[in-house]
Amino acid sequence: MKDSDFIKVFAPATVANVCCGFDVLGFALDQPGDEVWVRQKESPGVTISAIEGICGLSTDPAENVVGIVAQKMLRELDVPFGVELQLHKGMPVGSGLGSSAASSAAAAFAVNELMGRPFTTQELVPFAMEGERLASGSAHADNVAPSLLGGFVLVRSYDPLDVIPLGVPLELYCTVVHPQVELKTSLARSILKKDIPLQKGIRQWGNLAGLMAGLLKADYSLVSRSLHDEIFEPERAFLIPLFRQAKEAALEAGALGAGISGSGPSIFALSATATQARQVEQAIQQVYANSGIDLNTYVTQVPEQGARLVSQPTLHAQK
Amino acid sequence: MKDSDFIKVFAPATVANVCCGFDVLGFALDQPGDEVWVRQKESPGVTISAIEGICGLSTDPAENVVGIVAQKMLRELDVPFGVELQLHKGMPVGSGLGSSAASSAAAAFAVNELMGRPFTTQELVPFAMEGERLASGSAHADNVAPSLLGGFVLVRSYDPLDVIPLGVPLELYCTVVHPQVELKTSLARSILKKDIPLQKGIRQWGNLAGLMAGLLKADYSLVSRSLHDEIFEPERAFLIPLFRQAKEAALEAGALGAGISGSGPSIFALSATATQARQVEQAIQQVYANSGIDLNTYVTQVPEQGARLVSQPTLHAQK
Repeated sequence: MKDSDFIKVFAPATVANVCCGFDVLGFALDQPGDEVWVRQKESPGVTISAIEGICGLSTDPAENVVGIVAQKMLRELDVPFGVELQLHKGMPVGSGLGSSAASSAAAAFAVNELMGRPFTTQELVPFAMEGERLASGSAHADNVAPSLLGGFVLVRSYDPLDVIPLGVPLELYCTVVHPQVELKTSLARSILKKDIPLQKGIRQWGNLAGLMAGLLKADYSLVSRSLHDEIFEPERAFLIPLFRQAKEAALEAGALGAGISGSGPSIFALSATATQARQVEQAIQQVYANSGIDLNTYVTQVPEQGARLVSQPTLHAQK
Repeated sequence: MKDSDFIKVFAPATVANVCCGFDVLGFALDQPGDEVWVRQKESPGVTISAIEGICGLSTDPAENVVGIVAQKMLRELDVPFGVELQLHKGMPVGSGLGSSAASSAAAAFAVNELMGRPFTTQELVPFAMEGERLASGSAHADNVAPSLLGGFVLVRSYDPLDVIPLGVPLELYCTVVHPQVELKTSLARSILKKDIPLQKGIRQWGNLAGLMAGLLKADYSLVSRSLHDEIFEPERAFLIPLFRQAKEAALEAGALGAGISGSGPSIFALSATATQARQVEQAIQQVYANSGIDLNTYVTQVPEQGARLVSQPTLHAQK
């Protein structure tokens, strides 16, 4: 069998938390992202036949997010065959850009395509969340939902799960800078206090409400005024070398706002134009120029679409 | 001089906090509200020549919110004459419906009319806030801003002040029930904890973001799913007799959501139609039927307009 037998799906990296939107707001990038390839196999169950672009990930389907997601979907659909998966990592792990989420989202989208789309894309979110449960110990949705659905997505509630694609009528460009330092999500979470001061909470949700209004009313100035994190960024900033300087440089270069992507170490900045976003990229690169820290940088539009079909099996490969 | 010499302005009652929107979100009602009448006088300074509809309010302009607001505006405008004010209270005090805010907003709007509108309505917010500072000790804006501007208004930030009229494209009706029990705002505030659990905070701002999206995307279901208060309502509910029963009755009668108006004791419920809002009113009235507690009830649309001119001086009274 050849590559051309596979359904190939791409799912993008995502920025979660988004300053004042801790744990509830995320948005998709156009790139980077992961591909999951899937094809039917006669024996039941899930196998992972290849993992490319990264070392050290398990091909045991119970130990890999793409396997977990596919297993969950097969159980739900109760089909008499199995699936073979390949994972093609196109983005760094541990970057704060939703690496496991992109893999999980791509797996859910790919298996759904193979099965003839029994689920809407939104219905795939809970399956992809199972990958997040394996990867981080909690089935959060603020990366997988935008990776699947594109654009900005609100996770209003987990119980019951209420995922709301926002359909933001505003062109936004994102600069992402990934300083290649190790930062465990578990550490970034463990330093957070269990209680927050009421006054900070009020300022935080005032800003989140402002951000929502700015996004939905297409008001760049209001988006910019609202992109603050009063609570978590001050606690986490020290984990990311040169974070404060990088953020300041981004704002000086004209970004609408900037913050920590997910739990870091990546830094994101939003801009109104592609040109601005490139200038922001350069400004942050200069901050790290003599630091000895390597960077991955990405400049992409916030796309309307998330996970997508890259290619279907070619005709000669189909029965 | 006669009544017809006065510029007469009405400013409406308001619902602040709005479940998950504690301290940042408020909306206007169509009624009840207060009127402030104003006319020029030759001597400088502010006098309050009459207060109707309520007993016990001071006519000393330094001790009455309408006087404070007018004084502040006169100082800012530096005019060589003074103003005479009358306050006609059309709503209960201490109800949680922004009584002092309605007076303050009406005073600011009226003096602005008298002066030939040197300020936009939005620019009147800081003046009206001075009335709130006198009334409650803190210059909050979440009642005066919707009373002046109408509709739903977000107070994103106080430093700097950032007041955002939301322009909600959704027809909403409000049922307000005011159980006539005394409840001091200072008590309602003093029982709040200074810290909030992070997990409750996340649910609260998830709901607020959902409410913003529901209002701005004209999604009744999302508005309804988001109208929860995880933090303050549970702490304050015991202050309002039969609150839980009243809320439950409102929801059973078809309200989208219900909660404490401001810091109480009034209860508000939002509905999609006037008919529904009337049914909600009846359902809550039944809860209190044999309680011995008197009620004021109001059913109004959430209006696009807030403070407004009721009448100008008639021609014969003008020079």
